[in-house]
Amino acid sequence: MAGTARGRRPGAPDTRASVLDAARASFAEHGFRGTTIRAVASRAGVDPALVHHYFGSKDDLFLAAMQLPVDPRAVVAHVTEGPLDEVAARFLTAFLGVWDDPEIRPALLTVARSMVEPGNDRLMSEGFLPVVIQPIGARLGLDRSEHRMTLVASQVMGLILMRYVLRVEPLASLSSEDVVATYAPTLQRYLTGELP
Amino acid sequence: MAGTARGRRPGAPDTRASVLDAARASFAEHGFRGTTIRAVASRAGVDPALVHHYFGSKDDLFLAAMQLPVDPRAVVAHVTEGPLDEVAARFLTAFLGVWDDPEIRPALLTVARSMVEPGNDRLMSEGFLPVVIQPIGARLGLDRSEHRMTLVASQVMGLILMRYVLRVEPLASLSSEDVVATYAPTLQRYLTGELP
Repeated sequence: MAGTARGRRPGAPDTRASVLDAARASFAEHGFRGTTIRAVASRAGVDPALVHHYFGSKDDLFLAAMQLPVDPRAVVAHVTEGPLDEVAARFLTAFLGVWDDPEIRPALLTVARSMVEPGNDRLMSEGFLPVVIQPIGARLGLDRSEHRMTLVASQVMGLILMRYVLRVEPLASLSSEDVVATYAPTLQRYLTGELP
Repeated sequence: MAGTARGRRPGAPDTRASVLDAARASFAEHGFRGTTIRAVASRAGVDPALVHHYFGSKDDLFLAAMQLPVDPRAVVAHVTEGPLDEVAARFLTAFLGVWDDPEIRPALLTVARSMVEPGNDRLMSEGFLPVVIQPIGARLGLDRSEHRMTLVASQVMGLILMRYVLRVEPLASLSSEDVVATYAPTLQRYLTGELP
């Protein structure tokens, strides 16, 4: 759990930067599954042990390479605690807590935009989804967990696009509480409701 | 209602092409509201009457400039006919009829990608939304029509992103019928349900 999100920045800045550059290039070219710590190390001209030492696991390296202003796993860590029939509201409240923070939003927008750029398809489907989104469903012990979390992601990505990227009114100016109340029934059904 | 979608292509191909180039550049730079037929004509070095003659209204010119393989207004034309409590299923069935058509999808993907490119924000918020999406809500006579249609757009854009652009499984391989059954309750609530 080292890396950007926690603020720990060991090692020479140049080495860290070249490992992150190599990681970004490798994730974009080969996807999350097709990228190994060894290949990133080789590309950056450093020892694989150093990459492990600096960034931890491949999940950690991926999130550091995305240059997120917060660790999304920490944001959703407590979402799975509490009644299952209110999990969607807890998830949306945690999500809006970072997206509606004006200090954090610009960096999140950069990441969101990079995910829909041509050639970056795998950052979402093979990176962000399995590393951040799918584990939530697994921790909740849902049936058809991957499918349900993909439906959740389909609504959350559209919300990001309309409220934060395109800033469409009146959605862009809606209070966080109203956004939670608007979207919670949708996400709750995707998570725990009957699906075809 | 002339233009690409109907297959009528009057006038010299070069003139048509230069008007469409000028229209695309103007919509991208100034947005839908900030673009006039007169300004597009001036940019293309032709008479405004010629632009009207070739493409009809500014709505028609916008849709022709987007190079859509079908006229989206024709796709959703009959969605508003029939019981209001089934309108979401009719909308999704019409929508999937074009997106799940392998002949049409590649061109739709190009348009969808262009909408999320940096600098093209207004193509959605000031173009596609008011020209294609908002009129559906107005025809249905919904209260808070613009807000409701924006919520619909937020789910439909996320569905496009996950199923067609990023092709995330199992959503990408789900039958059209199952996609309609999955998303219809969401859209129906956004259109006619209680909202905060």
